Amino acid sequence: MADSRPNVLFVLTDQERYDCSAPDGPPVETPAMDRLSSDGMRFSRAFTPISICTSARASLMTGRFPHGHGMLNNSHEADAIRPNLPPELPTFSEALAESGYECSYTGKWHVGRDQTPEDFGFAYLGGSDKHHDDIDEAFREYRAERGVPLGEVDLEEELYTGDDPRDTSSGTFVAAKTPVDVEETRAWFLAERTIDAIEAHAGDESGASEGADGDAPFFHRADFYGPHHPYVVPEPYASMYDPDEIEPPESYAETYEGKPQVHENYYRYRGADGFDWEHWAEATAKYWGFVSLIDDQLERILEALENHNVADETAVVHASDHGDFVGNHRQFNKGPLMYDDTYRIPLQVRWPEVVDPGSTCEAPVHLHDLAATFLEIGGVDVPESFDARSLVPLLEAGGDADAVPEGWPDSTFAQYHGDEFGLYTQRMVRTDRYKYVYNGPDIDELYDLEADPAELQNLIHHPDYADVREELRERLIGWMRETDDPNQGWVPDVLEDAS
Amino acid sequence: MADSRPNVLFVLTDQERYDCSAPDGPPVETPAMDRLSSDGMRFSRAFTPISICTSARASLMTGRFPHGHGMLNNSHEADAIRPNLPPELPTFSEALAESGYECSYTGKWHVGRDQTPEDFGFAYLGGSDKHHDDIDEAFREYRAERGVPLGEVDLEEELYTGDDPRDTSSGTFVAAKTPVDVEETRAWFLAERTIDAIEAHAGDESGASEGADGDAPFFHRADFYGPHHPYVVPEPYASMYDPDEIEPPESYAETYEGKPQVHENYYRYRGADGFDWEHWAEATAKYWGFVSLIDDQLERILEALENHNVADETAVVHASDHGDFVGNHRQFNKGPLMYDDTYRIPLQVRWPEVVDPGSTCEAPVHLHDLAATFLEIGGVDVPESFDARSLVPLLEAGGDADAVPEGWPDSTFAQYHGDEFGLYTQRMVRTDRYKYVYNGPDIDELYDLEADPAELQNLIHHPDYADVREELRERLIGWMRETDDPNQGWVPDVLEDAS
Repeated sequence: MADSRPNVLFVLTDQERYDCSAPDGPPVETPAMDRLSSDGMRFSRAFTPISICTSARASLMTGRFPHGHGMLNNSHEADAIRPNLPPELPTFSEALAESGYECSYTGKWHVGRDQTPEDFGFAYLGGSDKHHDDIDEAFREYRAERGVPLGEVDLEEELYTGDDPRDTSSGTFVAAKTPVDVEETRAWFLAERTIDAIEAHAGDESGASEGADGDAPFFHRADFYGPHHPYVVPEPYASMYDPDEIEPPESYAETYEGKPQVHENYYRYRGADGFDWEHWAEATAKYWGFVSLIDDQLERILEALENHNVADETAVVHASDHGDFVGNHRQFNKGPLMYDDTYRIPLQVRWPEVVDPGSTCEAPVHLHDLAATFLEIGGVDVPESFDARSLVPLLEAGGDADAVPEGWPDSTFAQYHGDEFGLYTQRMVRTDRYKYVYNGPDIDELYDLEADPAELQNLIHHPDYADVREELRERLIGWMRETDDPNQGWVPDVLEDAS
Repeated sequence: MADSRPNVLFVLTDQERYDCSAPDGPPVETPAMDRLSSDGMRFSRAFTPISICTSARASLMTGRFPHGHGMLNNSHEADAIRPNLPPELPTFSEALAESGYECSYTGKWHVGRDQTPEDFGFAYLGGSDKHHDDIDEAFREYRAERGVPLGEVDLEEELYTGDDPRDTSSGTFVAAKTPVDVEETRAWFLAERTIDAIEAHAGDESGASEGADGDAPFFHRADFYGPHHPYVVPEPYASMYDPDEIEPPESYAETYEGKPQVHENYYRYRGADGFDWEHWAEATAKYWGFVSLIDDQLERILEALENHNVADETAVVHASDHGDFVGNHRQFNKGPLMYDDTYRIPLQVRWPEVVDPGSTCEAPVHLHDLAATFLEIGGVDVPESFDARSLVPLLEAGGDADAVPEGWPDSTFAQYHGDEFGLYTQRMVRTDRYKYVYNGPDIDELYDLEADPAELQNLIHHPDYADVREELRERLIGWMRETDDPNQGWVPDVLEDAS
């Protein structure tokens, strides 16, 4: 009997802001993402459970909030609290592979120091990088073969944090223009490998391949290394956006007044003390160019689905692991600041015959809900260990708010546990209108996103918001209990007693 | 050939402040500890590497700073970062046992959820408690046999944190008087078991026992559960100190102004909002009574050494894992505040024929230096993994400052990683005169201990101390490098750039 389950193509970007592909966002060209939205559904309230790579990616694999898998910070750091995923935790990919899906993976991994996608049911087709796991040398060889070896190209327009943004001797590398052709970029290379994978899988499907299970559906994950900083892009992307025409975001007015001290620390640690708006605009233009570069690669991948006649039977999902400040709140990268800049993520799903084209879902969802979603698409039971909820009912509802399943939460939950600068406990609950952040060692935060979408005013001590604060604290405690958060032995009492 | 190596009796208390047995401290009766000082050496600058039980005890076992064994917080908590010691890390007790020492252990353990002292070379003779590991039921049975079962006694003069210190329905239990006899206390019971152990070992030594290795030296560790809160003591200790005659410590003037926010948070979380000095004085009196109760048990143990004729061939070491605020800075317990109240510890060593009676050592030492010390006393090589330095050269120097080994550090290093309220990174360096605290997510701290021994004034931004601040930062970076601190990849740059 032929296996008629749909294929899934999952494209994950790294540090892509929500607003770049949002209709009311800045003028970033994202025609491929927009096409996914117009052919399928756009989620307007999708959030990462944590804005750090390893932790978010481990959540995606395990369907659990970070405290449930224990990878609380980046696995490549010397102070990684848990450098590898506990092997006994079920992952969506192992379950899909067991059910007969042909699972393949290209690109960035960054879940665990020693494990690779192959430990979790994927055929790993390469494309990773040295910094995060050094799984293979494929891109290095690709570049060498094309005559532009990695590391032998002089970048232009380099921008660094530190006192002098043009001083390459210190600070963090933020942005640059690369003189290579677009075909030499990692993004292009990754799209190539992904297109190869689609071709191989489609060959399987048509029976043309030598595979014994020629009718198996495929699940392919293409994991882009970008638009993560440094924002290094070639032409035409490097000058696609004119810095002079970019206006400062509203949150550029940040003063850190009334905020936890770590915000200002992080500004000094990671931020760009020496940056004025001219530098931020330049960095923003490069970031936007990076997003457009990747979007064009997504376009090539989508075309490959069509060229190989599998577009109609393939659900395509695009998301990012978390965002990037890119000058908002005068910061860049992500960190212990729970603003929408890094917690809200893009999410589009095209699923022919199932999802109404052009629909929008406003129900709040989490990145790791995709783990349960992939399993439901594949007709596989969701393991009990998952905190995730399948998005299939929302996808089938076609943007009809009344069709949202009963009991679907009307808020999201997130957490953070610190970064290289040190450990630091945060928990966040976000409704449509409000955001409450519990900061273990500092003052808490409360934002009214309707009155103050830039999240500039911490209302935690505002008397008019006392009821809202209490309600959000109760909601946070509810999330902690529901997800078996280990801090629930302590935090609920603190929040109930706090004024 | 007879084994002529000395016996070691190691008495560790739990949360005992340095000053209780210090000559210039408050008037707490500690004749047994004082006798150890007058018969041996008192260390006036001994410090714990971390003021939390599991982490300090794991350092003591492994001779490593906490980041070296990874047990960064308490193992019994749901959010324990590492619930058990990595079995491959060498411990002093395994090395001693392998070398032929008869190692035995009574009392509190609290290193690891599943492991017991028996996993590390000790014969475990009981005396632990349910809260921390539930290794045995011995004390429960002891009390039941004596007709005063645990939990069936109505305590008196109970004191709780919270709005109403007499309200037992909420808050944390701080202090009380128990109507039982001193023979029914855990401290007495533990001394009994320890005396039994001394008797058994001494029997071995005289050849009277059935042991094959009748001439083996012994290492016995007696680990008191106290004076940790709740300070529950029977008469005569409960009324041994008159609260009306106790003056507030200098640091009771604490305002938290200019300190990291976590100080005030911790005051609210753990501290006693509803306490006035009357309550603190009462708690202090009970705490002092608890110290005297334990000191009397130490006296009984020391007498047992004499009664069994092994005092001359036994080195006796007394220390505590860390201190307790007991009203200082208006706090109790320990936490993410690196004051001497919890980081400075008592340490006395009596070693007949080796240590000059009545000597004082002013060289700075760490609690876990004892791990290396025990090995050198036993003539066993110190494993390379140890950060610890043996105190034997200091003990042999007899308080002669000129005899301190060349290269002995003139500062101590400490760290903290958070508590139940959440994760929070701290590093501390302390010289004779100054203390510098790096707070990952908050402002740093600098204290001039000569001008301000109560550590009330944070001088981190004081222009007159800019040079001191830089010097201490460099020293901290040096400690991080020397101990292979995983945060050294990040913190040194931050400290070098910080103003």
